[in-house]
Amino acid sequence: MLQIQEAQKGNITAEMLEVAKAENISSEVIRERVANGTVIVVKNNLHKQVKPLGIGKGLSTKINANIGTSSDCSNLELELKKLEVATKHGADTVMDLSTGGDLDHIRKEIVKASKVPLGSVPIYQCFSEAFRHERKVRDVAGEEFIRAVEKHAEDGIDYVTVHCGVTKESVKRVNDQGRILDIVSRGGALTAKWIKETKQENPLYEYYDDLLAIAMKYDLTLSLGDGLRPGCLADATDRGQVQETIILGELAKRALEKGVQVMIEGPGHVPLNEVEANIQLQKSLCNGAPFYVLGPLVTDIAPGYDHITSAIGGAIAAKAGADFLCYVTPAEHLKLPDLNDVKEGVIAAKISAHAGDIAKGVAGAMDRDIALAKARKNMDWEKQIELSLDPEKASIVRGERTPLDEDVCTMCSDLCSIKLGN
Amino acid sequence: MLQIQEAQKGNITAEMLEVAKAENISSEVIRERVANGTVIVVKNNLHKQVKPLGIGKGLSTKINANIGTSSDCSNLELELKKLEVATKHGADTVMDLSTGGDLDHIRKEIVKASKVPLGSVPIYQCFSEAFRHERKVRDVAGEEFIRAVEKHAEDGIDYVTVHCGVTKESVKRVNDQGRILDIVSRGGALTAKWIKETKQENPLYEYYDDLLAIAMKYDLTLSLGDGLRPGCLADATDRGQVQETIILGELAKRALEKGVQVMIEGPGHVPLNEVEANIQLQKSLCNGAPFYVLGPLVTDIAPGYDHITSAIGGAIAAKAGADFLCYVTPAEHLKLPDLNDVKEGVIAAKISAHAGDIAKGVAGAMDRDIALAKARKNMDWEKQIELSLDPEKASIVRGERTPLDEDVCTMCSDLCSIKLGN
Repeated sequence: MLQIQEAQKGNITAEMLEVAKAENISSEVIRERVANGTVIVVKNNLHKQVKPLGIGKGLSTKINANIGTSSDCSNLELELKKLEVATKHGADTVMDLSTGGDLDHIRKEIVKASKVPLGSVPIYQCFSEAFRHERKVRDVAGEEFIRAVEKHAEDGIDYVTVHCGVTKESVKRVNDQGRILDIVSRGGALTAKWIKETKQENPLYEYYDDLLAIAMKYDLTLSLGDGLRPGCLADATDRGQVQETIILGELAKRALEKGVQVMIEGPGHVPLNEVEANIQLQKSLCNGAPFYVLGPLVTDIAPGYDHITSAIGGAIAAKAGADFLCYVTPAEHLKLPDLNDVKEGVIAAKISAHAGDIAKGVAGAMDRDIALAKARKNMDWEKQIELSLDPEKASIVRGERTPLDEDVCTMCSDLCSIKLGN
Repeated sequence: MLQIQEAQKGNITAEMLEVAKAENISSEVIRERVANGTVIVVKNNLHKQVKPLGIGKGLSTKINANIGTSSDCSNLELELKKLEVATKHGADTVMDLSTGGDLDHIRKEIVKASKVPLGSVPIYQCFSEAFRHERKVRDVAGEEFIRAVEKHAEDGIDYVTVHCGVTKESVKRVNDQGRILDIVSRGGALTAKWIKETKQENPLYEYYDDLLAIAMKYDLTLSLGDGLRPGCLADATDRGQVQETIILGELAKRALEKGVQVMIEGPGHVPLNEVEANIQLQKSLCNGAPFYVLGPLVTDIAPGYDHITSAIGGAIAAKAGADFLCYVTPAEHLKLPDLNDVKEGVIAAKISAHAGDIAKGVAGAMDRDIALAKARKNMDWEKQIELSLDPEKASIVRGERTPLDEDVCTMCSDLCSIKLGN
């Protein structure tokens, strides 16, 4: 059973009902949007313990947290802890991007432990395992790209990033364009190098029908990757990037025809004044398919604070119609994130998504803000803290300095405007 | 000598030349804009060791850090340290908002130590000293409002917040409106309470000419305060707030006629979709006078992270034309900030200002981003760190996990896209 096919037949599935309930939207609206590809219901048929997640038009903005090992840092326990921290603080999905250690084992354990839908990038596994066996990029066979996707789907992964738009044509356009940072997506760089060295077309593009067949088997969602996204502000919104989006729009259409759910991935590093245009462009080129953005980071000069640079871009993106934000942690560009980085990244992304939801008019988005404002007026600290995005942190910060008068805080003390006005 | 009067006579002062040089803009353009009140040159004639600071149309976005004691936490050494941390990380001005301890002494010491222009809110001193002597709000005489301003000006304070727009008329409109959080500005709440209890008009409004006379004596900049700014998203852009801005626009005009430099203060808590409108409204109502915003915070639910909620709003505000951002620290709504809060607040505000400058096309704003992107392409870590907004933090974070191959970082390790592409 495929969600799109059922929706197109006019059937509201149990999964659509669950999404409708979670979003407080009519199930008929969900059905309509699943049918036309503007809403997806993310859940691998095999991934029993997760609730289906709705992403797309009119729904609240979702956030993803990337976790996973690298060859420099490989510790399954730590990654399971990251999964826990990410979901505790509100990640709607988690991606396992592991490239170090026993990848099959790590993935299976994360799938087993996760209560939220999981994503992955299957070709990372092809190449990291190849490199460990001293094979080079060109030594990886085209079928391995496809087989990796199938393996991840069999394990219950709910959505996979597939860089199908990195083709001979789009890579040529990136090269002709001339960029400061060329290709910065790992999947994009690997695929482009593979194309260059083997002189063959990207298997994920050439054998896209095989990919669709796998996706149909599990109702696996394809996240059509932005392998050619800009890696710095100066490279943003260039011909290479837009060429890839055009191709992804065509592939999204083919997927919809087969009943395969897709979302589109997007930038990346984008000046603040180009963020809205990027969202509008994707919506237009990809027939309104859900848009999953990484950041966007609105400056390149703040390593150590890229959760903030991307919180700015993410909020504007969400307001403009982005449906799904990938978090960025303070460790971005510097190291593999640790537990605290994961937490900071999730909170920053939640703030963006929430601010965006209020701005784009998601029903009820401002209710919690209003409740917190009322608690503030009543000087009800317990309630203020309870309603905070991170009650633990709010409570600790308040506790660091104790006011003489417990109604107020140590910022204004006896000049507290609220107390003056009450 | 007053900057505006000189500019209106066609004279380019030494201060205007310094601003022109710092901003890389023609001094004639600076002169023109000082003459029409769209650019201010902040510097008290008595504050010898500070460089004049340009704020306004076409200039880079500036940021301010608030420091100061409260009656719960009063420690001059700590405040001097905050001044140091704030300016080290790039605060263009600092405001001393002290309300605890020996206020005259604290202010004089901060003026002496500061290399950047300083702001203050003189009426805080009137009321906090009154409260210490068991006097009530109504016991403060109207002349004390004005005398406090003069005292701060004599000490070399470069700009003062004066809540002149909190009048019988505007307070009535706030009350008629009905708000969740009523008045949240300390100065606004004190003034409104004073008006209510004494049944007199706000002295800073009624005797505005006296205020202008003081300002003329020192070329003190008046920061016309937003005493009626919204304290939560639900209260944003309401009739009370806009009424005050209308009055401030009238007062700005009167100041310009006398040769007194002013800027206008603005919100506050504002939903993301109303931020641009707020900026446009102020520019229109106040004849393009420089706009100084606090945040704006784009959600109320993130105490502990309000440097991020305001970094989002501040960036959009700067892009839309706000000229000056007041930082917000992670301690906002919870406690008086400590040294680390000051640092986090300054960095977040710098990110906003910088992202805004790129977006609004300030000349050369993206140069550092481009240089950092090139260093990233060259895997030149020393340069990447040197060009970072906070090199110390970037260096520490990178050092927390050491990659096997020093060209890359532990995030991608052997799958580093940049190394793959070089």
